[in-house]
Amino acid sequence: MIIAYDGTKYRGWQKQGNTQDTIQGKIESVLEKMYGEAIEIHGSGRTDGGVHAQGQVANYKSHNLFSPQEVFQNLNRHLPQDIRVLQVEEASPRFHARLNATKKTYRYIVNIGEIHDVFMRKFETHIPKKYDIKSMRDGAKRLLGEHDFRCFCGNKRMKKSTVRRIDSIDITRQGDKIIFEFTGNGFLFHMVRIMTGTLLEIGEGKKKPEDMDRILAEKNRDLAGFTAPPQGLCLKKVEY
Amino acid sequence: MIIAYDGTKYRGWQKQGNTQDTIQGKIESVLEKMYGEAIEIHGSGRTDGGVHAQGQVANYKSHNLFSPQEVFQNLNRHLPQDIRVLQVEEASPRFHARLNATKKTYRYIVNIGEIHDVFMRKFETHIPKKYDIKSMRDGAKRLLGEHDFRCFCGNKRMKKSTVRRIDSIDITRQGDKIIFEFTGNGFLFHMVRIMTGTLLEIGEGKKKPEDMDRILAEKNRDLAGFTAPPQGLCLKKVEY
Repeated sequence: MIIAYDGTKYRGWQKQGNTQDTIQGKIESVLEKMYGEAIEIHGSGRTDGGVHAQGQVANYKSHNLFSPQEVFQNLNRHLPQDIRVLQVEEASPRFHARLNATKKTYRYIVNIGEIHDVFMRKFETHIPKKYDIKSMRDGAKRLLGEHDFRCFCGNKRMKKSTVRRIDSIDITRQGDKIIFEFTGNGFLFHMVRIMTGTLLEIGEGKKKPEDMDRILAEKNRDLAGFTAPPQGLCLKKVEY
Repeated sequence: MIIAYDGTKYRGWQKQGNTQDTIQGKIESVLEKMYGEAIEIHGSGRTDGGVHAQGQVANYKSHNLFSPQEVFQNLNRHLPQDIRVLQVEEASPRFHARLNATKKTYRYIVNIGEIHDVFMRKFETHIPKKYDIKSMRDGAKRLLGEHDFRCFCGNKRMKKSTVRRIDSIDITRQGDKIIFEFTGNGFLFHMVRIMTGTLLEIGEGKKKPEDMDRILAEKNRDLAGFTAPPQGLCLKKVEY
């Protein structure tokens, strides 16, 4: 299934105990009522509290009691308005939304206008400063390709591999908005937000584009920039 | 001053007693703390509970204790995030935001997609039906010019004149959205929402474009369509 959500009110994707304030928890509880048994859904990745999605992908296994159309309708009838299921289809028994994902695209929006947009305020981060787009693009291109991204990992005790591949980082200006779009084979905990924070520090002149090379090489989180706040971030698309 | 607001949480523009759940009440209470005295602001018009604004205009009289820039900064510092002041300037002593307004533009957005947009859900009305844009445009053009719009007035006991002039009604389709834009010299209580509801009934085939002539001529609210819900409506612009 493909899911869109306004993450403002949630503690993130991943279920934490019996709490009903996660996206996963909300979806599982509707499915469990439907099927009359415990259902575990696998998301393509865990989005943080306050982060949004336009195209999160998740799967679960069931006994084919219901058609995809019935699941689609039932979920949208019972889920809160800030979580919508956009598509449901039957997948191969071996499909796994996280393990089979080959590419993900995240978008981060910074509104640099003097006054924040009242309508988009929950989906954009407001930082009324001047940024040099050209130097941010210069910094960004140094991140492309396969690297050890430990410096951009919010979990300092990460034991698994921190090597990932970034395919593209597009930075565009639309009116008062700066839109960052990151595509890669996977992203570490807080990685998009720390990359965005580091690029913003470059755009502001606090860091130089060349600093990006040293940050990557030294693999030290403390050298990278701040963790940009969650509300500007959205999981746009997952590819398989 | 020009004001934008997300009206979702408010009972509308107009102050009602001592409640703090109106836009006017919120703005006045910041100004009163600033000036240390009672301040009454005049809005260009009262928006209903749940209705939004991109360009509401309001004025008040004061003793020039503060510059427009100080008022602008103080209001945006102390107002909640869903109300933003976009501009403040000194006006002539005779300026009155409501009495001097010559034209207003309201926008109404209907999302007709199967699934509502999680990000825009508070600023659009979701009605997943098929509408014929051409017949809605035909119905709309019959409203242009000066008419007695009593049939579109939500207050059946309205004692003042119900004659208004509508300059344009643009109806456009953008993806899953139908966008109505109404410009005129003034609008009665619920008038934009009832016109939108009537146009939607024409678009759905429940009424014919020609019915609009009879509805106008008979001046009977009961002949017009339903009152479209508030969340799709936004006061876009006021002209002087």
